Amino acid sequence: MRNLNEINITDAVLESFANTPSPRLEEILALLVRHLHDFAREAKLTEAEWMEGIRFLTATGHKSNDIRQEFILLSDTLGLSQLVVAQNNSRPQDATEQTVFGPFHVPGAPVLDAGADMAAGRKGAPCFVDGTVTAGGVPVRNAVVDVWQADGDGFYDVQDEKWSPDAMTLRAVFRTDANGRFSFRTVLPASYPIPTDGPVGDMLRATGRHAMRPAHIHFMIVAGGHETLITHMFVDGDAYLESDTVFGVRSSCIGNYIRHEPGQAPDGTKLNEPFYTLTQEFVLNPLPVPAHA
Amino acid sequence: MRNLNEINITDAVLESFANTPSPRLEEILALLVRHLHDFAREAKLTEAEWMEGIRFLTATGHKSNDIRQEFILLSDTLGLSQLVVAQNNSRPQDATEQTVFGPFHVPGAPVLDAGADMAAGRKGAPCFVDGTVTAGGVPVRNAVVDVWQADGDGFYDVQDEKWSPDAMTLRAVFRTDANGRFSFRTVLPASYPIPTDGPVGDMLRATGRHAMRPAHIHFMIVAGGHETLITHMFVDGDAYLESDTVFGVRSSCIGNYIRHEPGQAPDGTKLNEPFYTLTQEFVLNPLPVPAHA
Repeated sequence: MRNLNEINITDAVLESFANTPSPRLEEILALLVRHLHDFAREAKLTEAEWMEGIRFLTATGHKSNDIRQEFILLSDTLGLSQLVVAQNNSRPQDATEQTVFGPFHVPGAPVLDAGADMAAGRKGAPCFVDGTVTAGGVPVRNAVVDVWQADGDGFYDVQDEKWSPDAMTLRAVFRTDANGRFSFRTVLPASYPIPTDGPVGDMLRATGRHAMRPAHIHFMIVAGGHETLITHMFVDGDAYLESDTVFGVRSSCIGNYIRHEPGQAPDGTKLNEPFYTLTQEFVLNPLPVPAHA
Repeated sequence: MRNLNEINITDAVLESFANTPSPRLEEILALLVRHLHDFAREAKLTEAEWMEGIRFLTATGHKSNDIRQEFILLSDTLGLSQLVVAQNNSRPQDATEQTVFGPFHVPGAPVLDAGADMAAGRKGAPCFVDGTVTAGGVPVRNAVVDVWQADGDGFYDVQDEKWSPDAMTLRAVFRTDANGRFSFRTVLPASYPIPTDGPVGDMLRATGRHAMRPAHIHFMIVAGGHETLITHMFVDGDAYLESDTVFGVRSSCIGNYIRHEPGQAPDGTKLNEPFYTLTQEFVLNPLPVPAHA
């Protein structure tokens, strides 16, 4: 292993992994090194460009901490996250599609009763969500529905400087009833920019890309015997549906949020401002029933 | 740009770079995204494996600071650094070859006179280096020769906890004389492991690779009108010449370090222990003479 040039060095590196105990790790590393080397050769990467790459990755690591994950943001904006989601979640035609999990989920959100208001006064037009969880045309009862979203200004609660886990807003957990239904009051979310004060923001600016995601509510639905569904319901008509900066929009995940003039809301209250309703069915993918031995 | 699957998402991401002002940046990003996506598809990367990659890269960033560069170490151990060096430094057949710069160079090393001892008492067998810098068969005078190395235990001075830039050892700068010659006394370097207390160490352990580099002295030679030469002179016979963990060994960079029994050293002193000599020619690559306008 001497005198390696830019061509034969690839085989030498692959050979160095020959004693890897895990065949899967060796397979992944071999593909990674092949593509990393092919990239550097095809780009004819200079030493200065290589150093800029080292600097960018280091800054991405330094920007990441317990509540900010810049490498996930980088993966999202380079389409890698959606690619990995897509290739691991092919579903039957009629099942609701999966999209990216995103960086804003917080475990331990409050468990609320049907119809509860999870907005706690945050900005935005009132919005009433009436959901049904089904599988194979049959309602799924007792499913856990974890919901989180930005407010009418495009901000998640965790983006508040004085955020505390004891006062979560615009995130909650519901359970479906015997008819597979769940419901809650919230506000209509707005589109928002992903955080741009780090290396990913530098990348977006350097490439003339915007940082926007179209408005959406996140849903994660867990039910025994079914594949967990992680998805969004996007707001139809949003200006960024065709250019989501993390490439996550699916037509089957665009919700029919209907605007209503001031008047009586679905929960019986009388509203002096326009409000929205979303009636949405979520179709789960049943897992195969395990054969008894 | 909706309903992207694991195949058509690649073109969507490339399209998102269409407004990049710098054509070179767009070219690099396009190749990067193509290979990143091909890697994920060919490996059929799962969501758990993707998350492990995010975790590894984040830890690599967190391990990097002003005096430790874990991303360079990762690039070194994946052969990327040597690949980039090789493809940017093709030299005429007779010129001394380039190899990796490594992470241990410190600028501002003391300028010493010919024959000076740069070891300052550090461990290792005495070693007398007698170098000549030439180009096209002609000595190069007044070249700046920057030298740095590990000691006989395999440690660089900066790895001492109480290191101070005011007391550098085993690093110095020399100038060639009218005959292109420079000389110094040092100790024979030992082979050594790269730092393994970070993610790169985890990778080496997980793949059954050792962390060793064969013993060497670093040389960076700068002379007007010539391409700067950054290279090592490895110690012949070292056990790790065939398995350098950063893939940097070149046959033309293996020095003929000759062992001598106790007795009179090249500088006239009488030594009671065995010592080594290295007589080495460094052949520079002349730069083209700029044409006058």
